[in-house]
Amino acid sequence: MRHPLLAPDLRELIHEQDAAGLRDFFDAHHPADTADLLDDLQPDEVLFVLGLLDGRTRAEVFSYLEPELQDGIAGLMERRELAALLTYMSHDERADLVTRLPPERVEQIMPLLAQAEREDIRRLAAYREGTAGAVMTSDYAVLSPELTAAEAIQKLRQEAPDKETIYYSYVVDEGRRLIGLVSLKDLILAPPTRRVAEIMQTDIISASVQEDREVVAQKLMEYDLLALPIVDTEGRLVGIVTHDDVIDVIVAEATEDVHRMAGIEPLAGNYLQTPFVSLWSKRGLWLTILFVGGFLTTVALTKFEDFFQQFPPLVLFIPLIISAGGNCGSQSATLITRALALGQITPRDWARVFLHEVLMGTSLGLALGVVGFVRALMTPSGALHGMSALKLAQVVSLGVCVVVLCGNLVGALLPLLLKRVGLDPALMSNPVVASLVDVTGIVAYFAIAQAVL
Amino acid sequence: MRHPLLAPDLRELIHEQDAAGLRDFFDAHHPADTADLLDDLQPDEVLFVLGLLDGRTRAEVFSYLEPELQDGIAGLMERRELAALLTYMSHDERADLVTRLPPERVEQIMPLLAQAEREDIRRLAAYREGTAGAVMTSDYAVLSPELTAAEAIQKLRQEAPDKETIYYSYVVDEGRRLIGLVSLKDLILAPPTRRVAEIMQTDIISASVQEDREVVAQKLMEYDLLALPIVDTEGRLVGIVTHDDVIDVIVAEATEDVHRMAGIEPLAGNYLQTPFVSLWSKRGLWLTILFVGGFLTTVALTKFEDFFQQFPPLVLFIPLIISAGGNCGSQSATLITRALALGQITPRDWARVFLHEVLMGTSLGLALGVVGFVRALMTPSGALHGMSALKLAQVVSLGVCVVVLCGNLVGALLPLLLKRVGLDPALMSNPVVASLVDVTGIVAYFAIAQAVL
Repeated sequence: MRHPLLAPDLRELIHEQDAAGLRDFFDAHHPADTADLLDDLQPDEVLFVLGLLDGRTRAEVFSYLEPELQDGIAGLMERRELAALLTYMSHDERADLVTRLPPERVEQIMPLLAQAEREDIRRLAAYREGTAGAVMTSDYAVLSPELTAAEAIQKLRQEAPDKETIYYSYVVDEGRRLIGLVSLKDLILAPPTRRVAEIMQTDIISASVQEDREVVAQKLMEYDLLALPIVDTEGRLVGIVTHDDVIDVIVAEATEDVHRMAGIEPLAGNYLQTPFVSLWSKRGLWLTILFVGGFLTTVALTKFEDFFQQFPPLVLFIPLIISAGGNCGSQSATLITRALALGQITPRDWARVFLHEVLMGTSLGLALGVVGFVRALMTPSGALHGMSALKLAQVVSLGVCVVVLCGNLVGALLPLLLKRVGLDPALMSNPVVASLVDVTGIVAYFAIAQAVL
Repeated sequence: MRHPLLAPDLRELIHEQDAAGLRDFFDAHHPADTADLLDDLQPDEVLFVLGLLDGRTRAEVFSYLEPELQDGIAGLMERRELAALLTYMSHDERADLVTRLPPERVEQIMPLLAQAEREDIRRLAAYREGTAGAVMTSDYAVLSPELTAAEAIQKLRQEAPDKETIYYSYVVDEGRRLIGLVSLKDLILAPPTRRVAEIMQTDIISASVQEDREVVAQKLMEYDLLALPIVDTEGRLVGIVTHDDVIDVIVAEATEDVHRMAGIEPLAGNYLQTPFVSLWSKRGLWLTILFVGGFLTTVALTKFEDFFQQFPPLVLFIPLIISAGGNCGSQSATLITRALALGQITPRDWARVFLHEVLMGTSLGLALGVVGFVRALMTPSGALHGMSALKLAQVVSLGVCVVVLCGNLVGALLPLLLKRVGLDPALMSNPVVASLVDVTGIVAYFAIAQAVL
């Protein structure tokens, strides 16, 4: 959300290098709002503004900035300044920043950090993108099972400023294996002398560090949790993923799916801020593949050229019929892809889906076939070139029926197949389904025409 | 997520009416997991199982069930049983349930509830679907500003079992106007004798009860909050929306957009559980509109019938050209619709979008035009019917170029226009854009052909 009234104020303060005024401005606005305004400025301007803030606030505002701007500012900062910024940032966000820095820059900064911080950054930055490890943070609260509720609250009170959340604390044994979860609510409700071991929940929902971030999101959603603990293969606690990071994952995954379904390589950033050439290639790649694939329609039509020269009115209905098939295919592909993403169906349900879509395709095809029959009957006699309107109507209605059924089946089964072989079902984007249906549609339509005429 | 190994166990226990075994089963599994298994059973079976649980657990499991199943069970329950269930459910979920019950059933139950509960249900159920009011809950914690931190914690301790969250408390004045927010973390960190008025944050992010639920979701996301307070037009606190409900809103809105973009009236429930007739009409409606709209392609082709009889090879490239335009249009429509949904752009950015898409459409069109030129040159001489391959290639490449540019502009500007006039931009679904491009594409292609030949 942009705040058009605030932007000029901020610009003027920066232009006049009014340090006192800028500090007042920052005190009066939420870091997320200020960051939003700063996003439109140049890295050197933002660096000047950030320099006026204390370390903790600076890190907070910085974390809300767009990744591209963060990288620009990090590039301009002095080594010491950048190292100081990293110590104040939340553990997951600083690991993300370090992952994006040039390797030589990382080597410069690492020696300036405490050993524990260095190891933490290295560890978090090592996880593959898209996994639980890559979205988790390591600043969570840990309790030992022997503490009493009062001692635990006292410990959390001391640690609170450095932790992402103190509302859930994780209980680990000597080997750091996750053995329990205790919420601050549980601690407050418990008698002060009761031990954590007696209060904690032991039936813990967790995810493995190598799992897909989508699995983490689904678990947190399904159980309405504030955070999900992440464990390694030995069951040792290595991080947590919090509710706000899960929201980011859900939004990012939905965007990725929507883009893929429309035949666009997913954009990481903002539409207008993505460089032209990068967007051009993300779109052009699929467009070209689809265009070359579309040559098949030309080949198919070439085979029937003599036939449609003999019966020219057949040509009039080609776009109508193939687009009906394409639309139907897109509907099915979208329904199935979304149902897969929401965990409503799995590839094992293919038989139910197949049956469902055969019935759906047939009934939708019949309905559109009737409409097409009526429309073809109304073809003006001048356009019929001596062809029987009734014959034309038969061919068109049968053609629509078959193409719609084909579209439905291709659209429904391809995403299931892709998922089955471990690919993203959204990749079988709607235009790919439409292209496949175009070709089969043309062949089916003319095959029917040849049979009827 | 289904748990295939647990389902047979549960079925057997129910079949044998093994009350003790079922109670053990419930103790051993998370309510979300049990509810997931129960979702596949009949309402009367689930009612039997729920009858074995204590009131609080029963309400919890019930809340996790699919809405259709909830309605079925509520229909079978005795009045008193249903009233008791409502008193244990969270305030937002019971209001949703009551909204779905038949009016005569609501009248039967209401007298059995305490007056405060009745009023709460009536109030929450009154808000229009899709607004903040319809997703908010009324079981939040309220503090008065004069309390000390210790007194506030003591109050929360007493109220905790009945509140959706005690991690955020809201501070209101005598007129119930929202004047502050205090987190449990702030209360725990503060000296016990400090007053809430001194600890609370007064710069509160809130939403109005009539606002769209998407606005609520965006605010909670932007500021990384656990819950967002909802106020009426006088600034009085009337409810809160919690992070887990926001996740549900985000997922539901994304599904709605994806379905709309593929030309499907959004499904409320699960793909395989939606009744066939309902899904048929949700798909058939748009398919028929698009099919009838597609008649325009037939009309357009009829105008050029004599012309393509004279130059038959022109027909071979019709599907290729219109599908390139349609694909390009879908890409742009998807990019813009998603960017609008994420708040990255607003209709006021139309000029920047227009310029961007003119450049993008032209450069993509030129690239595909070159490919099309080469392809058309390669048309076998037998298929040319005496036409010049070079002329054909010129027409095809120019046609692709113009159609791709058209597709890009139509796809980008229509969602902006829809948003501007207050409609859902996803409604200008990709197939509608494709249909529009089909017609303009055919006209443009033959107009170019007439000019060149």
